[in-house]
Amino acid sequence: MSQEQMERLKTLLPDWLETSRLHTSQGKVASYIPELAKSSQDALGIFIADSQGKVISAGDCGIPFTMQSISKVFTLILALMDHGEEAVFFNVGKEPTGDDFDSMIKLELVEPGIPFNPLINAGAITVSSLISGENPQEKSERVLQFFRKLAANDKIDYNLAVYESETESGHLNRSLAYFLKQNGIIKDPVDDVLEVYFRHCSIEVNCADLARMALVLAFDGVDPCSGEELIPRRYVQIAKTFMITCGMYNASGEFAIDVGLPAKSGVSGGILTMVPGQYGIGLVGPSLNKRGNSIAGVHLLERLSKEFDWSLF
Amino acid sequence: MSQEQMERLKTLLPDWLETSRLHTSQGKVASYIPELAKSSQDALGIFIADSQGKVISAGDCGIPFTMQSISKVFTLILALMDHGEEAVFFNVGKEPTGDDFDSMIKLELVEPGIPFNPLINAGAITVSSLISGENPQEKSERVLQFFRKLAANDKIDYNLAVYESETESGHLNRSLAYFLKQNGIIKDPVDDVLEVYFRHCSIEVNCADLARMALVLAFDGVDPCSGEELIPRRYVQIAKTFMITCGMYNASGEFAIDVGLPAKSGVSGGILTMVPGQYGIGLVGPSLNKRGNSIAGVHLLERLSKEFDWSLF
Amino acid sequence: MSQEQMERLKTLLPDWLETSRLHTSQGKVASYIPELAKSSQDALGIFIADSQGKVISAGDCGIPFTMQSISKVFTLILALMDHGEEAVFFNVGKEPTGDDFDSMIKLELVEPGIPFNPLINAGAITVSSLISGENPQEKSERVLQFFRKLAANDKIDYNLAVYESETESGHLNRSLAYFLKQNGIIKDPVDDVLEVYFRHCSIEVNCADLARMALVLAFDGVDPCSGEELIPRRYVQIAKTFMITCGMYNASGEFAIDVGLPAKSGVSGGILTMVPGQYGIGLVGPSLNKRGNSIAGVHLLERLSKEFDWSLF
Amino acid sequence: MSQEQMERLKTLLPDWLETSRLHTSQGKVASYIPELAKSSQDALGIFIADSQGKVISAGDCGIPFTMQSISKVFTLILALMDHGEEAVFFNVGKEPTGDDFDSMIKLELVEPGIPFNPLINAGAITVSSLISGENPQEKSERVLQFFRKLAANDKIDYNLAVYESETESGHLNRSLAYFLKQNGIIKDPVDDVLEVYFRHCSIEVNCADLARMALVLAFDGVDPCSGEELIPRRYVQIAKTFMITCGMYNASGEFAIDVGLPAKSGVSGGILTMVPGQYGIGLVGPSLNKRGNSIAGVHLLERLSKEFDWSLF
Repeated sequence: MSQEQMERLKTLLPDWLETSRLHTSQGKVASYIPELAKSSQDALGIFIADSQGKVISAGDCGIPFTMQSISKVFTLILALMDHGEEAVFFNVGKEPTGDDFDSMIKLELVEPGIPFNPLINAGAITVSSLISGENPQEKSERVLQFFRKLAANDKIDYNLAVYESETESGHLNRSLAYFLKQNGIIKDPVDDVLEVYFRHCSIEVNCADLARMALVLAFDGVDPCSGEELIPRRYVQIAKTFMITCGMYNASGEFAIDVGLPAKSGVSGGILTMVPGQYGIGLVGPSLNKRGNSIAGVHLLERLSKEFDWSLF
Repeated sequence: MSQEQMERLKTLLPDWLETSRLHTSQGKVASYIPELAKSSQDALGIFIADSQGKVISAGDCGIPFTMQSISKVFTLILALMDHGEEAVFFNVGKEPTGDDFDSMIKLELVEPGIPFNPLINAGAITVSSLISGENPQEKSERVLQFFRKLAANDKIDYNLAVYESETESGHLNRSLAYFLKQNGIIKDPVDDVLEVYFRHCSIEVNCADLARMALVLAFDGVDPCSGEELIPRRYVQIAKTFMITCGMYNASGEFAIDVGLPAKSGVSGGILTMVPGQYGIGLVGPSLNKRGNSIAGVHLLERLSKEFDWSLF
Repeated sequence: MSQEQMERLKTLLPDWLETSRLHTSQGKVASYIPELAKSSQDALGIFIADSQGKVISAGDCGIPFTMQSISKVFTLILALMDHGEEAVFFNVGKEPTGDDFDSMIKLELVEPGIPFNPLINAGAITVSSLISGENPQEKSERVLQFFRKLAANDKIDYNLAVYESETESGHLNRSLAYFLKQNGIIKDPVDDVLEVYFRHCSIEVNCADLARMALVLAFDGVDPCSGEELIPRRYVQIAKTFMITCGMYNASGEFAIDVGLPAKSGVSGGILTMVPGQYGIGLVGPSLNKRGNSIAGVHLLERLSKEFDWSLF
Repeated sequence: MSQEQMERLKTLLPDWLETSRLHTSQGKVASYIPELAKSSQDALGIFIADSQGKVISAGDCGIPFTMQSISKVFTLILALMDHGEEAVFFNVGKEPTGDDFDSMIKLELVEPGIPFNPLINAGAITVSSLISGENPQEKSERVLQFFRKLAANDKIDYNLAVYESETESGHLNRSLAYFLKQNGIIKDPVDDVLEVYFRHCSIEVNCADLARMALVLAFDGVDPCSGEELIPRRYVQIAKTFMITCGMYNASGEFAIDVGLPAKSGVSGGILTMVPGQYGIGLVGPSLNKRGNSIAGVHLLERLSKEFDWSLF
């Protein structure tokens, strides 16, 4: 079946991608991090990898982009591997918020003032503070090595221009971090925590890297190519569940209904998603819809999911 | 496999249920509808049905209880069958809220003032207004007949004492409904809409009924006993997705991580859930945790899901 | 001094009013109560009365308009006369909200769920429920007689078209009232309370009536013409304080800084204000600014207050 | 009259102060700035100064305390003197908020994201950024000199232990400041702005100093002893109006009704208030009520205002 599906995918994908690309004109490239504003408005690329090492790609799948919020999935996994479920979820909740990803409202209004989930900014900053390591450099290095291993690509590295751009313009993340500090949620100095956070957000990948990382999740933590377990299955399960309930910002519910796959998007236009047990998928399309997700990417994924009946539900 | 699992379930369930029952003392029976406050604090029952007509039950699975919020799943389905996706989702969103199920905040603060999803009260009241029918009586009758068919039980009926209790004490739902009226979301007179809403909340069932209704969802809308399609598959998919993202009040995210099954709970202590492709499950335990879900029921479901690896993720 | 000031006022007022009238084009007549939308966009009138029975008027001061929120000042006073400070302020607070006058947010979020003050809608509805009387008719009649006495005008009456319009379109006030009912703040049936509320909002007056009512407040509750004490001084003090802190919707703070007089505005474009110890002032200008106050009226009052150094501060 | 009132005050004050002091046991000394927690729970002192240089004092009026939020009134005045009304109110509003003094909610929810008024923390931080000066040191020095002149006391200085304590523990103020930076409200580096802010909060005074500063406001900006105009009258008017609408945290409305005087309190337990045209009053009582105001101080001021009919209203 998968073989046949791969063939049909290979045939359909180029045309479908071009159709979806037309939607890029209705979205907007993120501008709040100056360096991101340089992305190409009409770019769109996708890369699909299966467990036998077969791959399909279409469009601008070679362009590099920073992971941004997509990295939050994997820092959560690393924090879980470092400290276990109980310690992590003592500091961050498991619920969708219905608010903007950078909102402070629930931190102020809802006792006990912990972030609602690890995929909003406040939660991901908290998770960054839970990565093991003597100092921000060591923590960041561990994150980078973990990402490299998952992507099976030792060349993955930070985009320093984006990192500096985020550090300079990240007033709202600083505001969130000091609020968390006030609530006793983060213990380390704010600047140290944000260094780790801004660094993992600015790790640069391409669609193939994302697809490969997704493939590990699609196979419950085992790299299907090497057979090596890179992540305990339970932590993959937790990550995939959050990707369904909170992975696509305030359109997570809609994406779950219309696509039905675990996914995480980033403000750079990247989306990491997967068909569990089958494929890892990496996508990029910097033009964003109002909810902050790649406008053309969501369109393409919805069409693919409906055609191939990929929804988990 | 299923045969063997049924055997193990049959063996384990009585003991596990008694262990879970111990948790009932740490919860509280809902008191905001006076009639509900009469429920038994330490009751706990579960009923599991498979597609071959085999059933397993344990505990107080014969006690009757009103569906309350569980009914929202099926009125959503009926409204979708009556009007289609587009019309329904013009008036109600697809996103979890992170707020209380009866909150008005997002209606006031978030444009365009439609309820965030059909499983919070504001959303379910809106859905009630979308059931076809000339008048509240006709709409309510259609709902009742639909529920009877899904449960394969013609005896299902309203608990009139509960209905009257809700009508009398439902000031907050009235408040929500008038707010929706103000925002132009509901067109019919508020009292008419609430009659339908209060009626379907007060439909009385037992665990076997819930299990049978769940079984239809577990088999994508087809009654596996008769082979008849009762619900189009797409609407089942929508319903199951909402049950994952919003089915367990403000503990939906946690339930998705710890149990991983589509589920909907009610303030009466009922929970309807399913193992897709395998079982329909009905459960009742009136003692509620702080999030409004059956405290012992959630405990039991988590244990079962972990033991039998039922999570979708 | 007052004599001389009256002369200067008489000379300046007609020109100044015409200058202020130019601002009416930048505002908007309220449309949320259909009957109000019929008001004249460019009307502006003012009436000033002193304690010796001297009066000055300018512009369209003869046009009738409904009191709307201006009535809230006097129902508060009547409730205080009926039940005393303690009983009234057990059910309604004394603080400005910073939210819209019809907001529900603080009712939901801030314990114990009582309205923040008697001049927002939720507070005024609560106050309406505290007017003594056997039934809504009797309560309404007492309100009307009280207003007639304060205005020294027995002809004041309801505008029934407006009353009916408000009753029909007042979904948001119904929503607020049911929320208050839920919180236990109002005891009587919601429809009874709203009848009283909608009635006093739709009492029709002109600028002279408002000026006369204001004069009683300006002289601490004593009608300076008859010498009769109509309101205990303490309740006038309370009313005037609320008019400073909450009288002009979400522009109360700005009005206090720029005009500095106790005032209450209504959505009909009316403003009642006073120079304590000197004048009662009634004004109407249906074109409203974004905060819901008469755009030309505020302009004119600011100019007068600066010229004659009327600010209390 | 004033002479006679001074005599009565002198007679009554010692007893009344002791009665009010009994209330200190029902409050709590602020602990969020560690250094403040060392204050004496049962201290209470008051100092009243008139325009002829006569003074009355009672209780612990000699103890030193830091100005905290009381300083916000005078930095507002200095910013107004530096830049004028228009520039200041382009960056900060004029409305009470109804929220906590350190809340971020309205910054996030209400366009255009400027602080609602200059007496909440966000507003006062913004005002600190508007003090003229080349650098934080120069700005702070100008503030200190201004305060010394108003208090006619060259010895007034920073309490460096408190300053350092606030700098170290001021995470929430940092959070607010970065939010303001994000919204473009403050232009200077956050650390520079907060240095000025934390410094003026930690200026140490006693009741006599506060009374003297208040006296200048009570006489419209003119030091009644020297006859020198220290503040333009309009800026005093603005300051006094804010003290009525927002000076006593979320009990400003209540204080206006029950005391009726312009006042500003600080978390150290200080209150600066005045009887316009008559007295300047300084008070300290570190035990705070739930709204953050000196519990015994409010009690004493209410009794005095009622006895001597001091309310402006």
